[in-house]
Amino acid sequence: MSVTELTPMQKLEVVVGGEDVPVVRDLFAQAGVTGWTSVENVSGLGHDGFHQGRLLFNERAALALLITVVPEERIGALVAGLRALFDERPGVMFVSETRVSRPEYFR
Amino acid sequence: MSVTELTPMQKLEVVVGGEDVPVVRDLFAQAGVTGWTSVENVSGLGHDGFHQGRLLFNERAALALLITVVPEERIGALVAGLRALFDERPGVMFVSETRVSRPEYFR
Amino acid sequence: MSVTELTPMQKLEVVVGGEDVPVVRDLFAQAGVTGWTSVENVSGLGHDGFHQGRLLFNERAALALLITVVPEERIGALVAGLRALFDERPGVMFVSETRVSRPEYFR
Repeated sequence: MSVTELTPMQKLEVVVGGEDVPVVRDLFAQAGVTGWTSVENVSGLGHDGFHQGRLLFNERAALALLITVVPEERIGALVAGLRALFDERPGVMFVSETRVSRPEYFR
Repeated sequence: MSVTELTPMQKLEVVVGGEDVPVVRDLFAQAGVTGWTSVENVSGLGHDGFHQGRLLFNERAALALLITVVPEERIGALVAGLRALFDERPGVMFVSETRVSRPEYFR
Repeated sequence: MSVTELTPMQKLEVVVGGEDVPVVRDLFAQAGVTGWTSVENVSGLGHDGFHQGRLLFNERAALALLITVVPEERIGALVAGLRALFDERPGVMFVSETRVSRPEYFR
């Protein structure tokens, strides 16, 4: 099997404070996401330059890194939902190309 | 140094139950992989849609996220080995493009 | 919102021993990086093939995975700094394409 036989998907990584994990998971569920991975013991530092240098995360906050992989047609709704959340709450997200061998699992 | 001077590689991310980590590491070794990173304190939820909605992971299982980076010619054997494992055991994998500055380390 | 409306960025992932995290963070700061995520409880194994099979990491070392996302014009300085560090200290780094929805946060 070569890389080109794998099926392209979008990987979404979200870093939020631990208290906002349930909201992110609700967003995932509303977007039809049934699988995700959560990494605990995550810390970070961020200054939100857009909002006048307000501290986004301080280093002592307990953060979570949530990872999910979805077909491209699902990513728009997820990103829109997270953008709305991040207007109110601290968080960052990254969207990357990835490939999987069993696409039916991610639909 | 610019991004284009870096050497393309494939990044493989595998999420499995903690009890299956040794099997995945054996697969890595058989495929000639000598370096990997393991993230503990990982949880997740997944429903395996392909197999009639069987629960793939429940949220309380202790999972591990294993990451390795290999040249493209190695990824096929890794993916084939993991596919065979995932016919029997729960797990997901993602394959993504990445770049490294010291390719000799990953060969 | 579709994936193509997101802004391309470079994601840098660095795995180092816990004792070298401050040095990496200094490199980030010197390169103008103000936000990063750190994953603890990371282990790994690596043999540094380039330097005659010297063990890069052993499995019992406490490692950290540091993740940051920067515009492409910043990645060169980061990679150069980390390469110099890795001439002296064990570590690996990967550079991957990613996309973000609020690019002003990562500049």
